[in-house]
Amino acid sequence: MFKVIDGVLHVEDVSVVELAEELGTPLYITSKAKLEENIEAYKRAFPDAEILYAVKANNNLAIMRIIAKHGFGADVFSGGELYMARLAGFPSNKLLFNGNSKSDEEIEMGIDCNVKFSVDSLDELYTIQKIAEKKGKIVEIAFRVNPDIDPKTHPKIATGLKTSKFGIPWDIALEAYKKAVELPNVKPVGIHCHIGSQIKEIDPFVEALNRLFDLAVEIEKLGVEIRFLDIGGGLAIDYTGEGAPTPQDFANEILPVFNERKKELNSDPKLYLEPGRSLVGNTTILLTKVNAVKKAYKNFVAVDAGFNLLIRPVLYNAYHRVAVANKMDKEAEETYTIVGPICESGDILAEDRKLPKVEKGDLIAIFDTGAYGFVMSSQYNGRPRCAEVLVDGSRWYVVRERESYGDLIYKQRIPDFLL
Amino acid sequence: MFKVIDGVLHVEDVSVVELAEELGTPLYITSKAKLEENIEAYKRAFPDAEILYAVKANNNLAIMRIIAKHGFGADVFSGGELYMARLAGFPSNKLLFNGNSKSDEEIEMGIDCNVKFSVDSLDELYTIQKIAEKKGKIVEIAFRVNPDIDPKTHPKIATGLKTSKFGIPWDIALEAYKKAVELPNVKPVGIHCHIGSQIKEIDPFVEALNRLFDLAVEIEKLGVEIRFLDIGGGLAIDYTGEGAPTPQDFANEILPVFNERKKELNSDPKLYLEPGRSLVGNTTILLTKVNAVKKAYKNFVAVDAGFNLLIRPVLYNAYHRVAVANKMDKEAEETYTIVGPICESGDILAEDRKLPKVEKGDLIAIFDTGAYGFVMSSQYNGRPRCAEVLVDGSRWYVVRERESYGDLIYKQRIPDFLL
Ligand SMILES: Cc1ncc(COP(=O)(O)O)c(C=O)c1O
Ligand SMILES: Cc1ncc(COP(=O)(O)O)c(C=O)c1O
Repeated sequence: MFKVIDGVLHVEDVSVVELAEELGTPLYITSKAKLEENIEAYKRAFPDAEILYAVKANNNLAIMRIIAKHGFGADVFSGGELYMARLAGFPSNKLLFNGNSKSDEEIEMGIDCNVKFSVDSLDELYTIQKIAEKKGKIVEIAFRVNPDIDPKTHPKIATGLKTSKFGIPWDIALEAYKKAVELPNVKPVGIHCHIGSQIKEIDPFVEALNRLFDLAVEIEKLGVEIRFLDIGGGLAIDYTGEGAPTPQDFANEILPVFNERKKELNSDPKLYLEPGRSLVGNTTILLTKVNAVKKAYKNFVAVDAGFNLLIRPVLYNAYHRVAVANKMDKEAEETYTIVGPICESGDILAEDRKLPKVEKGDLIAIFDTGAYGFVMSSQYNGRPRCAEVLVDGSRWYVVRERESYGDLIYKQRIPDFLL
Repeated sequence: MFKVIDGVLHVEDVSVVELAEELGTPLYITSKAKLEENIEAYKRAFPDAEILYAVKANNNLAIMRIIAKHGFGADVFSGGELYMARLAGFPSNKLLFNGNSKSDEEIEMGIDCNVKFSVDSLDELYTIQKIAEKKGKIVEIAFRVNPDIDPKTHPKIATGLKTSKFGIPWDIALEAYKKAVELPNVKPVGIHCHIGSQIKEIDPFVEALNRLFDLAVEIEKLGVEIRFLDIGGGLAIDYTGEGAPTPQDFANEILPVFNERKKELNSDPKLYLEPGRSLVGNTTILLTKVNAVKKAYKNFVAVDAGFNLLIRPVLYNAYHRVAVANKMDKEAEETYTIVGPICESGDILAEDRKLPKVEKGDLIAIFDTGAYGFVMSSQYNGRPRCAEVLVDGSRWYVVRERESYGDLIYKQRIPDFLL
């Protein structure tokens, strides 16, 4: 899906050099074929599971619509994500409203949209009960439980350790279901957990699934019919070239446990998954132009995208492969450090990379930026956010327009007395 | 400027509880009086210096306009900041165009606006020459030089170490001026450095200033008239209550050195300063509402603002004081950890703080969020960005409107074939 023709990187059949000339830089460019390959891989590996795309990874409407058209549901984490997921075409009955800090307005919106809730605290449970009662509705819920499992990933995105802010602590999870069962306007129908992101080993998922079954057995005794067990998202992708488990590898270890342990239950639960990164991460490059090359302490390549557009390197010390997109046939010659235009020393996109000779005007492609890329972008340092492009074969579509300077001030208002 | 009346936090004479009721939460709220106090402190301490406000710290037009009306100039780091600074009312001849990665379009814009440039690389120097020549203009420049000084601050914002991406390495700085002197359309008129941010000791600034003078002596020999020496920004503010140097403390150590060493020069340079944080940091609170309180591994207070709106805690491990804004007269009872609504374990705003009993619906004020607060905000997790309010005595003004769900998608476009 990413290939080289005459020394130029192409996304499917579209030259990124031509895209840069046509649209300017920086640019996020997504391959539709790669996205569909990932979708199909999940469908093949988990034919009976309900797959909820984690919208937080990439909320581009076009990308979400492609995923929705394949029959996936969505995990939404806020009113805004719920809004966008509905616009993208995900049906309400395939949405799960996650989130550790939902406002009353968001809860009301979720109830109005008839979505299921993953409930993170007793405070939230009682708020849902109160609003549901007022509306005369019954709301289907799962608790997000905290299974206290170490997913061996970056601490900022390890979410299922007992120290984490997420979920109901394991030792009071059953208690929480007892409380929920007694409420007239909420109906427990599942159990949810999510142990982290960019997880390279499958053991922690199996462990989590086993814990959910342990709990499910107890919850059934309360008279609850368990319709789903949701083990969240978190499957890693291959940022470095060292490999990562595929959805099939994942299924090979998860499904036997799921099918075996299901026999302990009277209910017939579905397996829910919430992949984000592993659906969209490797579908997209961030294309950025070289403004200056400077020999200083290192060979610095200053490009027009920084942590305003891709914060993963500075926030998680993340590694992304890079290439000189207009010199793909040239030999690596020198070691370069790619830095952005932001006023902080931490604004480094890639450190000490062997690349062909880099010059002003060259294009740098940063790979695997489809997940937690644009969604985390800001206008820091007064930089309008860039465009997003979807490539389908030899055709391309601007799926998000570049912002202008006007967009930096369009919500701003100078009071009369200062005019 | 921040005071307590009947147990309620007020910004000047405005109750934050009433603001929250009127406008919703989260809210950035700025005290105009506090801002003017900071401005006056700088003017008193440095009556003869040219003070360039570092727009990157807070680019709200109303705030910038107040600063501009006091006669300050501005340090801008991008075309977008240049655009906003001009709208805010900073005159062109008081603007310095900084930045380590300026695009050709930005350089052209700066030349069209007749601003001075701080040049970060030889590539940039030659680009300026080329564009200036085409336009038949002479552009006044300084080089940003890297003095290799340890400012003893967070590594991500220590910008004057020799390892940093910024500036011309010290040992080739003179060489760079030699090259510039030979170019017909650029005119060196100053020297610039910036050693970092949130710097608590003044020694590193004095050291930097001395190095600039050492260089200035050499540069004069090239026939350059040195009109300014710019020691950048970086003065710390008092986030923790342990104290921080005032502009007067700063002046007391800087000015004697400046006035003494000036005698070594034939030129009569001005001192330039580029304060950001120390002008706006302590003028502003971020007000956020409690959605849920949960006893888990810690006592978690889940609020409606997270690192989408204030990234300093997760990015720099920054400390901000917090208070329960509607319970200012209550005794601290328990230890709480304030977390945001973002799907990452790192989304913690304040850890282990002794506070009065916190309940759903309470308002948490996060102090000292006027610098590197809203400017670094994102729409991550589908969260519209919040409003900003300026308080002036008993009056308040919405200076940035809250975003809606529509703003999450307004630049997005679904291609026809997916409709
Ligand atoms: C509840 C939940 N589900 C799913 C995901 C998606 O994770 P990933 O993108 O690693 O698959 C996240 C990510 O933070 C999450 O918080
Ligand atoms: C060149 C330059 N000047 C001034 C500043 C402002 O620094 P502060 O806000 O710490 O005063 C910065 C901050 O990064 C900067 O990069």
